[in-house]
Amino acid sequence: MTDHAPKDIDTLIELLAKLPGLGPRSARRAVLHMIRKRSILLTPLADQMQRVAETARECLNCGNVGTADVCDICANEARGNGILCVVEDVADLWAMERAAVFKGRYHVLGGTLSALDAVGPEELRIPQLVDRVTSENVTEVILALNATIDGQTTAHYIADQLEGRVTLTSLAQGVPIGGELDYLDEGTITAALNARRQI
Amino acid sequence: MTDHAPKDIDTLIELLAKLPGLGPRSARRAVLHMIRKRSILLTPLADQMQRVAETARECLNCGNVGTADVCDICANEARGNGILCVVEDVADLWAMERAAVFKGRYHVLGGTLSALDAVGPEELRIPQLVDRVTSENVTEVILALNATIDGQTTAHYIADQLEGRVTLTSLAQGVPIGGELDYLDEGTITAALNARRQI
Repeated sequence: MTDHAPKDIDTLIELLAKLPGLGPRSARRAVLHMIRKRSILLTPLADQMQRVAETARECLNCGNVGTADVCDICANEARGNGILCVVEDVADLWAMERAAVFKGRYHVLGGTLSALDAVGPEELRIPQLVDRVTSENVTEVILALNATIDGQTTAHYIADQLEGRVTLTSLAQGVPIGGELDYLDEGTITAALNARRQI
Repeated sequence: MTDHAPKDIDTLIELLAKLPGLGPRSARRAVLHMIRKRSILLTPLADQMQRVAETARECLNCGNVGTADVCDICANEARGNGILCVVEDVADLWAMERAAVFKGRYHVLGGTLSALDAVGPEELRIPQLVDRVTSENVTEVILALNATIDGQTTAHYIADQLEGRVTLTSLAQGVPIGGELDYLDEGTITAALNARRQI
C-alpha cells in the first residue's frame, strides 16, 4: 500500500488495517479522524494501548483476559460454586457476563478443534479443563460453545472426556428473544419445535 | 458501556469505539485480537500512534497532513506549476495522489460550507486560497469537490471569489471506468449523456 501520506502515518494506517473489521480505506479514515482529534483520541489511545500491552495477561486458570496471573472471576471465592461454563473465546465470556445471569466460573478454550489448522486438545486447554473438574470440585460443566460445526465437534470431544464425572449441559436452542419466525433459518425452527414446552 | 473486562481494557475498547467505522462490538473484537498479537500488533500500534501524535501537523500552506510546517508537496518546487487542486479533505488529496496523474499543488478546505454547522469561508481556508492564487502565480484552479449538494455549493462560492482571476475547472462527470449502466443513478447517466463526446 503506497499511500502518499508521510511514512509515519502510512505505517500507522498499515498497522490499523490489520485489525479485524478494518481495511485500508477505513484505516485511512480512522487515522485522519484521530489526527484531527489528537488530544482527545490519538494520544489517549496510544497511552491506553501502551498500558494494556504492559498489563494484559491471560488468566493461568481459565484463559480469561485480565491484569493479574489469576483473573477477577477465578479469584472471586463466591463464584466457585461448582459450575464451570466452557466458552470458545474471551468475547463469548464477556457476552455471558453482560447477561449477568451466570454465577459460576469459566473455562476459555481459545478456539475450536480443527484438524485442518492443527488445533488439538492441548492447544485448547482441554487437559487443564479436565484437571479443574477435579481440583475445583466441579459438579456441572455447561458447554456454551457456538452452534457451528466446529463448536459442536469440540463440544462432543469435551463431553467424551468428561463423561460420567460431571453433569454436562449445553445452552438451549430455540427462537431468540425478539426474533421473528420469518427471519429464522430452518435449523433454528426445527430445534425450537423439537424442544417445545408446555405452557 | 460496562463490559466486564478489566478497567484498562474497557477504557481501550471505549476509545477505539469512537473511531469512524468501529462500534462497541468491533472494538471489542479488535482489542482481543490486539492482545493476542501483542508483540506484532498492540505494542507497534501504541508506539506508532505515539509517534504520529508527536509529529503529525497540518501544512500551513495547503492544509495537507505532514510532519513539517510545510508538506512535501508544497515544498516540492517542481509541483509549483501554476495549477491548484481544491479538495474537501486530506483523504481526497490521497485519492488524487493514488491516481498519480495530477502534478500541481493542492488546497485542502477541511470540509464544506454549511450554514447549519456554522462553517463559513474562514473555517475552510478560502481567504488563504484567494491569497495563494496571487502569491503562487496560479493560472488554473481545479475544483475537485465531491459531487454532493454541499460540495457543489462550496464550489460555486469559491468560483464566485476567484472569477476573472484564474481559469476555473471541475472534474468531468460521467460513467466511472468499469461501471455498468444498470447500476448507475439517473443523475450520473444524465451527466454522461449531456457531456457525450464524438469518437
